[in-house]
Amino acid sequence: MERKKEAPVGVFDSGVGGLTVVREIIRQLPDENIVYFGDTARVPYGSKSQKTIIRFSEQIIRFLKTKQVKAIVIACNTASALALDTVRGEFDVPILGVVFPGARAAVKATQNQKIGVVGTDATVRSGMYTKIIQEMDPGIQVIEKACPLFVPLVEEGFKEHVVTREVIEYYLEPLRATDIDAMILGCTHYPLLRSKIRAYMGEDIQIVNPAYETAMDLKKLLKEQGMDNDRAEGSASRYEFYVSDTAEKFRQFANTVMPFDVPETNVVNIEGF
Amino acid sequence: MERKKEAPVGVFDSGVGGLTVVREIIRQLPDENIVYFGDTARVPYGSKSQKTIIRFSEQIIRFLKTKQVKAIVIACNTASALALDTVRGEFDVPILGVVFPGARAAVKATQNQKIGVVGTDATVRSGMYTKIIQEMDPGIQVIEKACPLFVPLVEEGFKEHVVTREVIEYYLEPLRATDIDAMILGCTHYPLLRSKIRAYMGEDIQIVNPAYETAMDLKKLLKEQGMDNDRAEGSASRYEFYVSDTAEKFRQFANTVMPFDVPETNVVNIEGF
Repeated sequence: MERKKEAPVGVFDSGVGGLTVVREIIRQLPDENIVYFGDTARVPYGSKSQKTIIRFSEQIIRFLKTKQVKAIVIACNTASALALDTVRGEFDVPILGVVFPGARAAVKATQNQKIGVVGTDATVRSGMYTKIIQEMDPGIQVIEKACPLFVPLVEEGFKEHVVTREVIEYYLEPLRATDIDAMILGCTHYPLLRSKIRAYMGEDIQIVNPAYETAMDLKKLLKEQGMDNDRAEGSASRYEFYVSDTAEKFRQFANTVMPFDVPETNVVNIEGF
Repeated sequence: MERKKEAPVGVFDSGVGGLTVVREIIRQLPDENIVYFGDTARVPYGSKSQKTIIRFSEQIIRFLKTKQVKAIVIACNTASALALDTVRGEFDVPILGVVFPGARAAVKATQNQKIGVVGTDATVRSGMYTKIIQEMDPGIQVIEKACPLFVPLVEEGFKEHVVTREVIEYYLEPLRATDIDAMILGCTHYPLLRSKIRAYMGEDIQIVNPAYETAMDLKKLLKEQGMDNDRAEGSASRYEFYVSDTAEKFRQFANTVMPFDVPETNVVNIEGF
């Protein structure tokens, strides 16, 4: 299939979290068109099995291909950790995840070779961050910690509630007790709790959000393949949003994350792909 | 289709919560065989749309029918509130939900005609408890309150954690400030928080768990239709458990809820039904 420069980049996530990655892509690649898919009918992914997450990811990639995407970013850490290797071998479109860029950023950031990773149950159980970091530098010690309540706390709007501070303390106390000097926010929801996590962990730890390096990798990939978009003077980039359920709830949340008014969001029966 | 007395009763839920209903059915109807399905690949239902919950329910009922069930209990309040009316018209097997029995129990329990209902977002938005209670007695005032974090708190094992008490206080404070004298636990997960809810709400409120009346309704239905099972002397009832994902995690949780060791749990690709 011939891909076109003006074709959109596909981005997907289990729900709204991946919008933090879209926000970064728009900042670094303002000329690219984007098609986003959030799997709101089956969110969350973090407590589910690898087999199921691979099947969900395959369905979503088949959907995004109907939009003639020239590249796909798996904005979900869980799907990046559990499905990326498999789906890369199955589809003829370049696919990026967030785990590799996040790992590389943390390896650059650490001074004392000790990195912490927070993520969903499934991401942490996969051990993928540890594996990739130690492939980059076998001397680095990695401490991973699953924080499964962070996603519902964000989704239910408890960001500013006192219980969120207590849940952060409960999960991160064992990490704060170590001498890690860099910590990866290994779930796309977690940047939405960044200031609270920062307040608890202190100023001396570098907090790594994989979104930044992921957008950089996407930029590099598109340039290398001569596929970066030359947007016509005066025209605007197009952003399309699709979900598998509750489009209006998604749009309202997206409006709090994105730097512009999110247009109409369409529901896709993703199980049919 | 001819149904047999020894055929199993099908019970389903979005995940593990419906086991509290199975437990009650086993207590009241020890001679019945049961096939349980937990939709662990797509849990939770409480934040999803009616259209999606109807589609999920239809798929599960089609699966349960392959097990020749003689009746089906929707043990999930969200699916009972949003899908029961639709699926009843679509399938040739008797289907019971938990909302009607729960409403009836609360109507019996209240002395001052003021009932509180706690449930998921979707259940509360449906207004189904209020509608059914006021059909039974238009003079009763119903106050509904969504408590979306209760399910993740239970699923993540925070039952005994201090934040659970605080979340209970946060959600239930507006209900405690009223003079309701009966409160329906309108989500099958919530009975697992019963003692904490009781401690916060005080001894003067009757806490209604719809599971008890649902099992009674099932017993009545099977008797009326002459379909109650006469278990052969010395034989044991059969309980089968199916899920759409993470069978082992389900089985471990189920073992903490059920009065016996839960047998092997099988994974079903429910989207294919």
